[in-house]
Amino acid sequence: MTPAFLSFEGIDGSGKSTQARRLAESLRATGHTVTLTREPGGSPGAEEIRALVLQGDTNRWSAETELLLFTAARRDHLEKTICPALARGEIVITDRFADSTRIYQGMRGNLPSTVNSLHDLMIGTEPDLTFLVDLDPKLGLARARARNDTEQRFENMGLSFQEKMRTGFLTLADLNPRFRVIDGSRDPDSIAAQLLALTRAQLS
Amino acid sequence: MTPAFLSFEGIDGSGKSTQARRLAESLRATGHTVTLTREPGGSPGAEEIRALVLQGDTNRWSAETELLLFTAARRDHLEKTICPALARGEIVITDRFADSTRIYQGMRGNLPSTVNSLHDLMIGTEPDLTFLVDLDPKLGLARARARNDTEQRFENMGLSFQEKMRTGFLTLADLNPRFRVIDGSRDPDSIAAQLLALTRAQLS
Repeated sequence: MTPAFLSFEGIDGSGKSTQARRLAESLRATGHTVTLTREPGGSPGAEEIRALVLQGDTNRWSAETELLLFTAARRDHLEKTICPALARGEIVITDRFADSTRIYQGMRGNLPSTVNSLHDLMIGTEPDLTFLVDLDPKLGLARARARNDTEQRFENMGLSFQEKMRTGFLTLADLNPRFRVIDGSRDPDSIAAQLLALTRAQLS
Repeated sequence: MTPAFLSFEGIDGSGKSTQARRLAESLRATGHTVTLTREPGGSPGAEEIRALVLQGDTNRWSAETELLLFTAARRDHLEKTICPALARGEIVITDRFADSTRIYQGMRGNLPSTVNSLHDLMIGTEPDLTFLVDLDPKLGLARARARNDTEQRFENMGLSFQEKMRTGFLTLADLNPRFRVIDGSRDPDSIAAQLLALTRAQLS
């Protein structure tokens, strides 16, 4: 088996987590061994750092400290989960990776060049293929309302923040050939089929 | 009052923590406002990161992840404790700062250039004056045995590791004019008097 490192990116409510899980299931059904993981977190140490970042007041950490904590979590995730799975010849699918930091922390602290320098220094690795599940944030909000559980967080972040994130992700995708932009407004079965076809093309 | 940022560095058992406290007391007795702090830690957030780094197995974090966590703690310490105190015109004395990372994490992971690049990117600040309390590790070990509480940790690290650290600190001091090397084998009163004189020269 050829190892492959795939990431899903996109705004909240885009459906990327569901599609990451469906892709993992489809690949397993055709004989692949798949490690499905997520960020922030994805390894025991990184999950502890995640808890430290997410608990308490929103502004308890500056953008710079938060960036360092997320990078520490990513380094642990890479060492303990992603690299060992790739070394075993598996397909690794992660729900979010460094591009999320480029967008979220880059926007929060207006630190895009610091984010990239820190990534180059301490992480280095990029996915072979990144699926950007693109969706109009208004549609994402409607979906989030329908499933209720993530509604509050989504609304708290605000529509204009989500729109800026969407633009940020699309700009990144324009600049990096590893990106595939997926229209997340279509029905989930069509999206799943497209993702499987793109993944097969990458593996062949 | 002129603000000043002073750090103490040295191997375990060198007496630097005692001398940092004595210097703070002497300066306060002559009318200065002093913030006495320490690393890792020194702010509520940094203390939480400290607990995360120090708990559990010795090798639960790689040298790189540990370096990122220590840098996150230092960034928080700088933002929440050191910079505000300097802005109020105080003297800040810290028991360990970035030089400890240059020696400990630099040696552990053989990462000296990464340590420096990360410092330049995310911390930047250096103390105005750094006191390296230098001591033969054999003497430090004898002192640590006498006070008993730090005995185990000191012995666990091993004499040859402590000797490498001592050499590392002395090399750093040779390269950086902000260092003052203090002979830690003399009686504590003489050392305290020398430290106060050097600090007064810096402040004048």
